Amino acid sequence: MERIPILKLGDLLLVTIQVDMHDRLALTLQDDLTTAIVAHGARGVLIDISALDVVDSFIGRVLGNIASMSRLLSAETMIVGMQPAVAITLVELGVTWRHVRTALNVEQGMRRLRASLDGPRA
Amino acid sequence: MERIPILKLGDLLLVTIQVDMHDRLALTLQDDLTTAIVAHGARGVLIDISALDVVDSFIGRVLGNIASMSRLLSAETMIVGMQPAVAITLVELGVTWRHVRTALNVEQGMRRLRASLDGPRA
Repeated sequence: MERIPILKLGDLLLVTIQVDMHDRLALTLQDDLTTAIVAHGARGVLIDISALDVVDSFIGRVLGNIASMSRLLSAETMIVGMQPAVAITLVELGVTWRHVRTALNVEQGMRRLRASLDGPRA
Repeated sequence: MERIPILKLGDLLLVTIQVDMHDRLALTLQDDLTTAIVAHGARGVLIDISALDVVDSFIGRVLGNIASMSRLLSAETMIVGMQPAVAITLVELGVTWRHVRTALNVEQGMRRLRASLDGPRA
């Protein structure tokens, strides 16, 4: 069965989305990721979407939901590598991400995620 | 155009292979990865193949070639997350990887790659 792999890097989880996510794959990712957060006690989730040229409202909503669920499991979500066209589409679609932080690339995202985890709020 | 994203993590590059690589995609990855090693001055390459259930002789050869090319560009390659069935297939296919090191997961691979880069041989 098709699955998007979830890589563990210390207390962070890293997911690279490369394929156009159809509905079932997106929901599988949601299940797998929440399970992985609990299993590994992860404190942060990095989702790289640099390979996505287009994002529709369904995927936008799934990503937002994943962030909200992660937050409930006390992990922060950082979406990295968004292409400019995707940012335009998301705003035009009216997708609002309440619990999502973004960074330009995975390295910057990881640094900022670690800084906020190690910081005074942690 | 379809591409496999290459993530930069410090002086390492991380590639997660999730789709069945047809010939052109594999050769694009080879080009992109060698270009990225030079562009970022990367010293190590981690290739996660945990999502692959099957590997054919073409892909096996491409992965081996990538490792040999990386070595010429002075970067070490570590292939991580191989499923047992894939290991069996590779041996049965007679694929030999001369410049490839392997690790069970990306975390272990990254630790060992960093250790050998920081070690006395570096």
